[in-house]
Amino acid sequence: MSSLYKLSTTIRKLHSSAARFTKNVEFTAVRYPYLKRGSYSFLSDRHLRFFQSILSPHQVLTDEFNDLSGYNVDWMCSVRGSSRLVLRPKTTEEVGAILQYCNAQNIAICPQGGNTGLVGGSVPVFDEVILSLGLMDAVISVDELSGIAIVQAGCVLEKLETVLHLNNLTLPLDLGAKGSCQIGGNVATNAGGIRLLRYGNLHGSVMGLTAVLANGQIMDCLSTNKKDNTGYDLKQLFIGSEGTLGVVTQVALHCPSKPTSVQVGFFGINSFDNVLETLRLSKQSLGEILSSCELIDQSSMECVTSQLKLKSPVNDFPFYILIETSGSNADHDAEKLNSLLETLLKNGTIMDGTLAADSTQATNLWALRERIAEALASEGYVYKYDVSVPIRQFYQLVDVMRAELGSLPIRCCGYGHLGDGNLHLNITSQEYNTVLLNKIEPFVYNWVSRQRGSVSAEHGVGLKKRDYIEYTKSPTSVYWMRRMKKLFDPNNILNPYKIFPGSLND
Amino acid sequence: MSSLYKLSTTIRKLHSSAARFTKNVEFTAVRYPYLKRGSYSFLSDRHLRFFQSILSPHQVLTDEFNDLSGYNVDWMCSVRGSSRLVLRPKTTEEVGAILQYCNAQNIAICPQGGNTGLVGGSVPVFDEVILSLGLMDAVISVDELSGIAIVQAGCVLEKLETVLHLNNLTLPLDLGAKGSCQIGGNVATNAGGIRLLRYGNLHGSVMGLTAVLANGQIMDCLSTNKKDNTGYDLKQLFIGSEGTLGVVTQVALHCPSKPTSVQVGFFGINSFDNVLETLRLSKQSLGEILSSCELIDQSSMECVTSQLKLKSPVNDFPFYILIETSGSNADHDAEKLNSLLETLLKNGTIMDGTLAADSTQATNLWALRERIAEALASEGYVYKYDVSVPIRQFYQLVDVMRAELGSLPIRCCGYGHLGDGNLHLNITSQEYNTVLLNKIEPFVYNWVSRQRGSVSAEHGVGLKKRDYIEYTKSPTSVYWMRRMKKLFDPNNILNPYKIFPGSLND
Repeated sequence: MSSLYKLSTTIRKLHSSAARFTKNVEFTAVRYPYLKRGSYSFLSDRHLRFFQSILSPHQVLTDEFNDLSGYNVDWMCSVRGSSRLVLRPKTTEEVGAILQYCNAQNIAICPQGGNTGLVGGSVPVFDEVILSLGLMDAVISVDELSGIAIVQAGCVLEKLETVLHLNNLTLPLDLGAKGSCQIGGNVATNAGGIRLLRYGNLHGSVMGLTAVLANGQIMDCLSTNKKDNTGYDLKQLFIGSEGTLGVVTQVALHCPSKPTSVQVGFFGINSFDNVLETLRLSKQSLGEILSSCELIDQSSMECVTSQLKLKSPVNDFPFYILIETSGSNADHDAEKLNSLLETLLKNGTIMDGTLAADSTQATNLWALRERIAEALASEGYVYKYDVSVPIRQFYQLVDVMRAELGSLPIRCCGYGHLGDGNLHLNITSQEYNTVLLNKIEPFVYNWVSRQRGSVSAEHGVGLKKRDYIEYTKSPTSVYWMRRMKKLFDPNNILNPYKIFPGSLND
Repeated sequence: MSSLYKLSTTIRKLHSSAARFTKNVEFTAVRYPYLKRGSYSFLSDRHLRFFQSILSPHQVLTDEFNDLSGYNVDWMCSVRGSSRLVLRPKTTEEVGAILQYCNAQNIAICPQGGNTGLVGGSVPVFDEVILSLGLMDAVISVDELSGIAIVQAGCVLEKLETVLHLNNLTLPLDLGAKGSCQIGGNVATNAGGIRLLRYGNLHGSVMGLTAVLANGQIMDCLSTNKKDNTGYDLKQLFIGSEGTLGVVTQVALHCPSKPTSVQVGFFGINSFDNVLETLRLSKQSLGEILSSCELIDQSSMECVTSQLKLKSPVNDFPFYILIETSGSNADHDAEKLNSLLETLLKNGTIMDGTLAADSTQATNLWALRERIAEALASEGYVYKYDVSVPIRQFYQLVDVMRAELGSLPIRCCGYGHLGDGNLHLNITSQEYNTVLLNKIEPFVYNWVSRQRGSVSAEHGVGLKKRDYIEYTKSPTSVYWMRRMKKLFDPNNILNPYKIFPGSLND
């Protein structure tokens, strides 16, 4: 059962329609006037002729208003670049030739996967050449016995999932954006999602990858070995580096066996203490079959039910938890989940609860969690924060923020991946409002920093959070990140203006 | 149930008795005459006075024959350094002060954890100062709800396991050496072991760490967040770098819930094709509760039963598989395992099989697998190879090697972590024999390289495998590893002579 079709479709629609709205989106260079273009070469006819000499015509897009608009704008229409060229390589070698030339010619590059990011990392800030991986979309091999799939970076996650299912395997990650996002982009941004609780993060699941460095050199780390301790694990550098250290072109992913039974429970809870107790007992009772533990607060539920006319299966409560199990024996899993439900009701940890009787019901329960983002967007402008906080402080931030903002916003709500300590704090207002924004930031970052949380749990840094990286990372860490960047990309041609505050060219 | 007590005790005994045999062990500088000491400072009284000024007397060991001998020799008595000084810091800050001074004074350092490695990585080659983490052995905190344990690097794995069990958690890794090995050393060498199949590798399980760089700078990456996407994941660099990029002093580890039921099955199998089919059906039927799938070949079984007087629970077969499940419901797990056994017997995939009725029987079954190394050692000299190979070629290497060696060795056998594609190829002879060695190497590395396997799956490179790293890693990768090393440790004071072939000082 795949529970995310609805959101996936939604994001796909939003994404494909982004082009239409492009003209109304403010240029990033205008919205962020303090950003200064680096001293890169301006694209010339000579450059263009070179790219046309090594690529086929359909791999070189230059029509600013038709071809390029969808690539210059993110799917939320929140950032807009002014690139005049999209290159669409089909092989690692073509990526190598492109980067070698750009490095020699001092041309800045913005690598782009499915362009589903939330932090402005995948679109150009100025006129960077866009390197789209979309034509590199082959599933190269899938081996059921070892669980290893080798796939080109541009393969859309949902397509890979379909192929894996045919081989009795499943993806170790699942995202709302899976209908559009690409595995290479997932790896480059260390995407999290709703299965991390069960299968861990991509640093553990990626067995190998190929990356092209800024100078065009091909770094072949495409190991399919589950164990390999020969020297430094260089592939790890590229996981989560957001295209600033190299361009990921191929990935070897370890994929778990496909569960034959997926079951969902939905609980209403009257206090956050009981939310934590529900998590504790769920981990204890469900053990190895627990695959998701998601929190929805009352305000998020109110939004998703009123805006999208969805129906909650339980009465009104301050909190709701969605529990998903994935296992290999439906009877065993049902017994475990039923027993958990009974215990929770009997000892008063939850006030109400229901289990999905079939996959339709399960999909409907998931929709209550997965369509919150869509519901919030329909209220106006959304200030979105994706943070990690210690589990006991998980909901404090929402309370504190509400007290701070008073009646300024329409709504201040929290939901997210409780089991991973990953809160999505969302605040809505009629329209983009700097008074409200200045009340939220840097307040939210300061608060998270004091708890030693992360100001970006799973969405990355990109452009939008680059000024806040030191709220999570120590100055020593950021100093060494800069040295790594300088080592791998001395001319700073790969995804400039992203991750690091200030200018790397200073 | 902990299945490894016996081996653990054995290794502990071997380790603590290493000192006694020290005088008979050939110096590494003699056995490997082509190694040349780097142009480091020789330890002077002035240096010693500095270390004595910042550390207590029991933290500075200088008695060559009593104190130092156990630190200068590995537990297999296969390598021997001639260090004259062991420093035993108690805090990260003390490690920082030591490294800052050594870097300024050009003093080479050999970081040492439990000294249980197999590749000569944790003892000095010449007179490097030994930095022992053994006094930094505190479990700082354990949180059952989030599963995060924060622990000092020198904590022995078994001690950490005991504390975790009290908190209903378990370790994501388990090693035969757990009675001696330290978590910092496990992280620094990216230790694998028998639970990797279930819980994945340390790149996924380590949430954060503190490392001290060669210049004494403290890199605080001690995040306890399960998700954190703020910039490059620098901690990954130190996982598996064998103490050459920095010294790990603290670790935040994600620990899974402690399984309440651990069950073991043992099968006799008549062909390698059926070995693979057993693996496939085990993954399918046991799904999420499968925690180990270990192979033992006939020759390994013969050795462990004859040398150690252990008894096999099944008749003689070319192959044996040990299956372990770990789960949260004993009845469910037993039903799954019984059903698997029935299927395998019925369709002829296995010829014989038994399930452990209690934890004593389970321990006895595990002993057949875990005590092979000990049994082999009692035959004389053991040539040990720890390689990763594609699962379908898993056993070919043993066959090919046997054909190549003919009657030269006493025994050529294979066993290991089938589920992870990790073979332990072992060859025994009466004593160390260069004719035999030259028949084995580089033959074994060439063969593994042709399969795109790894010449070191879980044991690292250290000193012994440094000349073979390029059999697994591309020249581009090794080039960039060298650049990383140069960036983080420009004077090459951290664990010199390890990992890289040739001299880094050239």
